[in-house]
Amino acid sequence: MAVVAVNTEIEKEARAHQDNLTKPRGALGRLEDIACWFASRQGKLLPDPLLPHIAVFAGDHGVCEEGISAYPSVVTGEMVKNFARGGAAINVLARQCGATLAIIDVGVMSDLSGFEGITHKKFGSGTANLLREAAMPQNQCAAAIEAGRSEAKAAIAAGANLLIAGDMGIGNTTASASIICRLTGTTPEAVVGFGTGVDENGRSLKVDVVRRALERISGKADELVLQEVGGLEIAAMAGFYLQAAESGIPIVIDGFIASAAALAARVIEPQVTNWMLASHISHENGHALALEALGLSPLINFEMRLGEGSGAALVVPLLQSAIALHSQMATFASAGVTDKDG
Amino acid sequence: MAVVAVNTEIEKEARAHQDNLTKPRGALGRLEDIACWFASRQGKLLPDPLLPHIAVFAGDHGVCEEGISAYPSVVTGEMVKNFARGGAAINVLARQCGATLAIIDVGVMSDLSGFEGITHKKFGSGTANLLREAAMPQNQCAAAIEAGRSEAKAAIAAGANLLIAGDMGIGNTTASASIICRLTGTTPEAVVGFGTGVDENGRSLKVDVVRRALERISGKADELVLQEVGGLEIAAMAGFYLQAAESGIPIVIDGFIASAAALAARVIEPQVTNWMLASHISHENGHALALEALGLSPLINFEMRLGEGSGAALVVPLLQSAIALHSQMATFASAGVTDKDG
Repeated sequence: MAVVAVNTEIEKEARAHQDNLTKPRGALGRLEDIACWFASRQGKLLPDPLLPHIAVFAGDHGVCEEGISAYPSVVTGEMVKNFARGGAAINVLARQCGATLAIIDVGVMSDLSGFEGITHKKFGSGTANLLREAAMPQNQCAAAIEAGRSEAKAAIAAGANLLIAGDMGIGNTTASASIICRLTGTTPEAVVGFGTGVDENGRSLKVDVVRRALERISGKADELVLQEVGGLEIAAMAGFYLQAAESGIPIVIDGFIASAAALAARVIEPQVTNWMLASHISHENGHALALEALGLSPLINFEMRLGEGSGAALVVPLLQSAIALHSQMATFASAGVTDKDG
Repeated sequence: MAVVAVNTEIEKEARAHQDNLTKPRGALGRLEDIACWFASRQGKLLPDPLLPHIAVFAGDHGVCEEGISAYPSVVTGEMVKNFARGGAAINVLARQCGATLAIIDVGVMSDLSGFEGITHKKFGSGTANLLREAAMPQNQCAAAIEAGRSEAKAAIAAGANLLIAGDMGIGNTTASASIICRLTGTTPEAVVGFGTGVDENGRSLKVDVVRRALERISGKADELVLQEVGGLEIAAMAGFYLQAAESGIPIVIDGFIASAAALAARVIEPQVTNWMLASHISHENGHALALEALGLSPLINFEMRLGEGSGAALVVPLLQSAIALHSQMATFASAGVTDKDG
């Protein structure tokens, strides 16, 4: 399927509508751009309020055996249980922005079968070590992408008109840094960060691991990057984005991992970024580079580095306000206010 | 009265609490700082959800006769009526963030008497022309400050625990630029902006007006700046801030006009800034300088330049989310998640 085309006619009408609202032209800054962006994506001059859905995909990473993370892999499963019980940051932020929330195990090392509040679509007990070999076989990567698509379809069918993908996976900043380096042509030194909190030695180790992983795949096509150095949760996020864009549903991109997934999705379908807004610029090195490569401009910089979809969920009220202003403000004519050139 | 002291003990406890929540330490970035800021201001380890109140003060400016604004003075009164009817940006944003809203006429040129939905505390039909003479007599300035104090007191008595002051007053970027230049020791060229939309010639005229106004008051004390080159609405905002800080209630600062009022309030009481958070950095030239002088770091940059309290109201959901995360997230111990050093 193809990515849905954006309605540029409605975007122009929305821009003209903004100019009639009771404020100096352009005085609402980026809020005006956001409202017009949603008008053109929803195909409605006055966009509907947002009904956000957040899907957090979780998977483990074989590369953790290289010692690249501050936390052990067991934390991935523990945090998934925390999500299911409602105690994590994304649970709080989903409530704050009125989003529905799904937690999907696509490849957690720990056995979570039977645990309630989780969607069980496990395709492996984590990935293989991307430094030594392909992280996933091709069919596993395809299945994870399809699982992401399926989650997006279900959320859209249930009424969501804004989709957010979050991630949980100890070791996934190493996988994401590898994807970002390879797909933006940047050096590991510029992209690799401190993840959940390694020290400078830990970061040097990560830089070296990413550098050697990139060497390993240097002769392979971009289409293979996701299965070679990605993760099951990252592949699912890419599929989630592809389905959203093919269904004509706006996406808010979270941080470093989400941007790596977005870059991987763009390899499959270059127009997918037309349906993406960037939420925040992460504290993780290289996130700015990834967003720039995607052609996305982040809304806020709160020095966050959590993942889970947290940065994307945080900005939803700003998007809601942009739409509410656009739809609810009086015009110069209706309010009897003298216009600048009136 | 004196500004209430900040509870630094609670701030330390709140910081320790953040470190126990199920996330890498520091991973929520500025959201952690915001939560701890509110903990110390409310004197509660787990701060209460915010009950915001927005007071929009309106007044006209005699300096408009110099041709410094893109809009005629009559728009001030027309916009106040728009506020009262619920059609302006601040009405929408107040609804979005669950704030109560008051509109106070402290010096609008048009006769608004009898118009419903407005608090009538008019101290003059606009100010005198600050280029030629003092904008206000001393007693009028004091009365406007007192009106601002009284609005803050009433809001606090009604249960508000977060105060936002907004402004409406054609010509007030010229008054504010004069205040900011004088109280930060900066040149008009660096501070004067395009206001509601003058062109480059209009801005040059504003620069010249501010420069000459500053020459006129060069021998006068900082304490006289507000009455000499301020506005009735700016004086009321300064009083509103002073009362909030003396009552120990947090303040969110809006844009250019609000920052000028904050600088003027600081002349009266240097500790007032302890109770202030900066919401956004305005598109108006010189706002960054004003915030830096106040020692405040803005949360977002949306290129807004509307006033009315709009930027401050916009960020309230971000503050609510910071508090909700701090108060509602599970700890490593309660969730059974392995800590980094565990």
